[in-house]
Amino acid sequence: MINPFTDEYFMKKALQEAEMAFEKGEIPVGAIIVVNNTVIARSHNLTELLNDVTAHAEMQAITAAANYLGGKYLKDCALYVTLEPCQMCAGALYWSQISKMVFGASDEHRGYQKLGTQLHPKTVVKRGVLAHEASELMRRFFAEKRK
Amino acid sequence: MINPFTDEYFMKKALQEAEMAFEKGEIPVGAIIVVNNTVIARSHNLTELLNDVTAHAEMQAITAAANYLGGKYLKDCALYVTLEPCQMCAGALYWSQISKMVFGASDEHRGYQKLGTQLHPKTVVKRGVLAHEASELMRRFFAEKRK
Repeated sequence: MINPFTDEYFMKKALQEAEMAFEKGEIPVGAIIVVNNTVIARSHNLTELLNDVTAHAEMQAITAAANYLGGKYLKDCALYVTLEPCQMCAGALYWSQISKMVFGASDEHRGYQKLGTQLHPKTVVKRGVLAHEASELMRRFFAEKRK
Repeated sequence: MINPFTDEYFMKKALQEAEMAFEKGEIPVGAIIVVNNTVIARSHNLTELLNDVTAHAEMQAITAAANYLGGKYLKDCALYVTLEPCQMCAGALYWSQISKMVFGASDEHRGYQKLGTQLHPKTVVKRGVLAHEASELMRRFFAEKRK
């Protein structure tokens, strides 16, 4: 039997969140957290609406998932996020001890990879899942902003 | 006239917050944010109580200060925190564009300096203010935990 719960399947849900951010005029980044093929947290960037630089999609998803689980560690969870996390979000993922992190588009300027932020040694990383869709959404967002 | 609003003056207020964390069984770290010599945010670590790895003192202070100011950038603000920020908190400070960051004790394992987290180029840093008091509080906390 074909497993429907692929990384692409879950990244599509994160992209839906990114589109919700887009519609609100927020930089379009979305994230979900999954445990045993069940989505336990979904969020999108809300820095403008909340007037808060810490309101990145990943930060909200980490808080929501811990709240759902009743514990602060996300050891059996996977995060799907449309854009490569920044230093802050990668630092939060470090503390969460999350098992798996999948991101879409790379962020060559502000992404954690270039800046050398340390993830938890137990976190497995997968890059570039539906990257084109995620970066196309970002491109459209900034093109509209410049108009 | 002597200026009462020294870095030590404000760090004492951050230490009071750290003591409140201690009393709650939280790793004792406190933070305040100051603008024009007025404290606009005060917080302490609440990761245990809130079951949330993102609930560091600095993160809460950044959110509270932005809420107070009605804007997400902390350009004219100073953060006083008893312990050197981690990657996550330093990453959040980067986004906040805060003017000044003063910390007490260094964190040689998890601190942003060793891990190379980038602060905003406009942020001025001062280290070691009431460092002894801050590390003594940490030492007492972990000594009691080990009992």
